[in-house]
Amino acid sequence: VENTYLFPPEEKRVVMSYRVPYADTDQMSVVYYANYFVFFERLRNELIRKSGKTYLEIEQSGLMFPVVEATCHYVRSAQYDDELKITGWLAWVQGSRFQIEYEILRGTEQLVTGHTIHNVITMDGGRPRRVPDCFSALVTQ
Amino acid sequence: VENTYLFPPEEKRVVMSYRVPYADTDQMSVVYYANYFVFFERLRNELIRKSGKTYLEIEQSGLMFPVVEATCHYVRSAQYDDELKITGWLAWVQGSRFQIEYEILRGTEQLVTGHTIHNVITMDGGRPRRVPDCFSALVTQ
Amino acid sequence: VENTYLFPPEEKRVVMSYRVPYADTDQMSVVYYANYFVFFERLRNELIRKSGKTYLEIEQSGLMFPVVEATCHYVRSAQYDDELKITGWLAWVQGSRFQIEYEILRGTEQLVTGHTIHNVITMDGGRPRRVPDCFSALVTQ
Amino acid sequence: VENTYLFPPEEKRVVMSYRVPYADTDQMSVVYYANYFVFFERLRNELIRKSGKTYLEIEQSGLMFPVVEATCHYVRSAQYDDELKITGWLAWVQGSRFQIEYEILRGTEQLVTGHTIHNVITMDGGRPRRVPDCFSALVTQ
Repeated sequence: VENTYLFPPEEKRVVMSYRVPYADTDQMSVVYYANYFVFFERLRNELIRKSGKTYLEIEQSGLMFPVVEATCHYVRSAQYDDELKITGWLAWVQGSRFQIEYEILRGTEQLVTGHTIHNVITMDGGRPRRVPDCFSALVTQ
Repeated sequence: VENTYLFPPEEKRVVMSYRVPYADTDQMSVVYYANYFVFFERLRNELIRKSGKTYLEIEQSGLMFPVVEATCHYVRSAQYDDELKITGWLAWVQGSRFQIEYEILRGTEQLVTGHTIHNVITMDGGRPRRVPDCFSALVTQ
Repeated sequence: VENTYLFPPEEKRVVMSYRVPYADTDQMSVVYYANYFVFFERLRNELIRKSGKTYLEIEQSGLMFPVVEATCHYVRSAQYDDELKITGWLAWVQGSRFQIEYEILRGTEQLVTGHTIHNVITMDGGRPRRVPDCFSALVTQ
Repeated sequence: VENTYLFPPEEKRVVMSYRVPYADTDQMSVVYYANYFVFFERLRNELIRKSGKTYLEIEQSGLMFPVVEATCHYVRSAQYDDELKITGWLAWVQGSRFQIEYEILRGTEQLVTGHTIHNVITMDGGRPRRVPDCFSALVTQ
């Protein structure tokens, strides 16, 4: 992956806090593996909001960002009532495609890393469109 | 509740089988309490299908059945890899409103009971409509 | 229900804020009905924390609070990216049993109300125990 | 990936059928991206069962298979009420590690592919163990 932002400057990272409910755990007393992708989405919403437009507004303007690939690497397990630090940043933009990197921590301890790749397409017809400038500015500034 | 079908004749019950994945469990090694409502929905889809129309077709005809009330009583816990028997039946129909009863078993052992009450409304405008005849036939036959 | 706290004094309410992710929505563009019970759990954790002990500590002391009944009344729908106000309070305590009331709002607009009833039992053996004093203080003060 | 089973012989594939509930959809009227990982888990349980031991029995024997990596590639979207064909196979085994490949179809149309990599460790202490013979037989036969 041509990710030159593996350790992005702090001002490019979006950080949010999240308290793990029972709902997210499984019988091994850890967060169920699929739920980290929901955490990724929570971060993604905040990252997009940072660009000056919410994803809701992007949809209202006729665009959508469907996921084409999603990966998670599991290092340590999050547990019930943990206060997680969910972080992420825009790794690259290329035409109608972009990648977001995620890192989830408990304090300073890394739990998981991952990424998602998205297409920018029109809601009406699914035609590819360039990544909106306001959003790609998050990587190029 | 004016439910005269608490023990409905067997032919009025819809029954489906469901294997519990890890995803449904929580750290007490039992199915997380909210997930039973998803089981109820799985049954509801099959109950509506039994009327001769799928819920998808009902939506395409311009109607929807939003939930106005949902209740679950928890007697025993379902666990990972249990093969559940999810059952349900149409309890009553009244104008634009109907109630479905649910019972979830493991073998012959009752785990939970519950019900949902739904409104029949138009997708366009949310105006109330009579419960479709094909569906209310499930209770009146 | 003998709920004398239907309109509890503000200091008895716990309030938390929650941003709705895509994950919580369904194809009607509203929060899927079962997910409100997860919102209830998020609030419940904070309500218990307010008693001076987290639910994690209660489990570590050998007790658990399984749900015996859960109900939700749906008035209006929450939507993607809504900033919800999830509130709740301890309605009553009776021996080994207690009830929590929930109300979810978007601004001042009521979306759903609901309650859960819980048993206090030992983790080892499932024997009933009195509701811990620190927790029942939330209702009796 | 050294996956020589990308097109495994049919007898090595496990296939299961799954009807998509409303619960799995999001407001784009497609299955929410994280839910495919739950579908993967449903298949994984059946694949392990095929080895002659259920995952429950593997846990009872003191082993567990935590996920260390999970990936999904999204080609087309599953929708409400679709009858999905979830398939998967054991791609490789190496010491205490193995990979499962997944493919989800609607009829003959490919919707997503993905894989998970798992460690075999002891439940008590988390020490690595060789993949059980009964399970690795699924790849070497």
